[in-house]
Amino acid sequence: MAVYQHTIEVATDGRSTVDISNQVQAIVSRSDIESGICQVFVQHTSASLMLTENADPEVRRDLEVFMSRAVPDGDSIYRHTMEGPDDMSAHVRSVLTQSGLSVPVGDGRCLLGTWQGIYLWEHRTTGHNRCMVVTVIGE
Amino acid sequence: MAVYQHTIEVATDGRSTVDISNQVQAIVSRSDIESGICQVFVQHTSASLMLTENADPEVRRDLEVFMSRAVPDGDSIYRHTMEGPDDMSAHVRSVLTQSGLSVPVGDGRCLLGTWQGIYLWEHRTTGHNRCMVVTVIGE
Amino acid sequence: MAVYQHTIEVATDGRSTVDISNQVQAIVSRSDIESGICQVFVQHTSASLMLTENADPEVRRDLEVFMSRAVPDGDSIYRHTMEGPDDMSAHVRSVLTQSGLSVPVGDGRCLLGTWQGIYLWEHRTTGHNRCMVVTVIGE
Repeated sequence: MAVYQHTIEVATDGRSTVDISNQVQAIVSRSDIESGICQVFVQHTSASLMLTENADPEVRRDLEVFMSRAVPDGDSIYRHTMEGPDDMSAHVRSVLTQSGLSVPVGDGRCLLGTWQGIYLWEHRTTGHNRCMVVTVIGE
Repeated sequence: MAVYQHTIEVATDGRSTVDISNQVQAIVSRSDIESGICQVFVQHTSASLMLTENADPEVRRDLEVFMSRAVPDGDSIYRHTMEGPDDMSAHVRSVLTQSGLSVPVGDGRCLLGTWQGIYLWEHRTTGHNRCMVVTVIGE
Repeated sequence: MAVYQHTIEVATDGRSTVDISNQVQAIVSRSDIESGICQVFVQHTSASLMLTENADPEVRRDLEVFMSRAVPDGDSIYRHTMEGPDDMSAHVRSVLTQSGLSVPVGDGRCLLGTWQGIYLWEHRTTGHNRCMVVTVIGE
């Protein structure tokens, strides 16, 4: 049994998704762990993680449009507005999705479904550097 | 310390929930792991997992009605529509819930609360075969 | 490699958030585990967990106001109403957030971002005793 931990840093271009599946798999490969769990954790509260379809990019476009309508920027109910109209909505979007997610590891690889990708979702409208800790535990 | 991993396949009848608590517990029992974590992961992006009340079935009925209203099928904002009006809404529902969840293991069993059940939530209107990987890590 | 497991009990004052970051960190410290994963799990279906900003308390106030509007108490679509108008909305709020969450552990501490706190979110309007199981796995 072993633990392998590595940090990824991604520079985002503002509100959008970034496919990090390959970066996560590369860490699992380097860990030499064959079977176990891989946990990805974003150390921010205005960006989050999601697992969704990796085939048609319109899926992520539609998710973004859905979220923009469900959690509008500049909503008049917000008091936490000092950092701009997209700050509090980014916190809400983060809470409605995931700060951390775990994927099973088998045969030395992330056991994602055929159409599953792991995405970092930047919720602020401007670009940010986002740190993620990837932890692989197993044998 | 050990890792035990097993795949479950469930045939769903279309949009509905399936209680998988006993199947997950059976895998924990077979693992002979007394203390640790059990992770359940669904390898699809239009079905998801949830933990909710297992006593009154109206709770899951109400969750379904809530979700149908919050994430309507055939929403005019969607572009990913080729597979039908329930496809993109299924992806949104999946992102708003969980593709993977972890439950603590103690004394060789899932430490669920008295009223907690683990459910697979099929979000497509037609039945599908859904694969889930269950990973138990501990000692 | 080792597993360390401990239960926390928190008495809530009704609908509100409670910062449990320090309690979780204290368990990680007692575990003597330097590197691995810490999983927190709430054994109830009408309270949940979230990671969000720990600096400005208005963030949690705004999250509460957002959730109260998105998931109204006493919604006429609910049939599960016997325990009061806040019961079914509490189950929905729980499903839209997290019953369990995992945080990476490195150098013997939870690798939270500078502005991240771990919160228990009570969704019922009256106070309840909430049990959480904290499991630390690593080496």
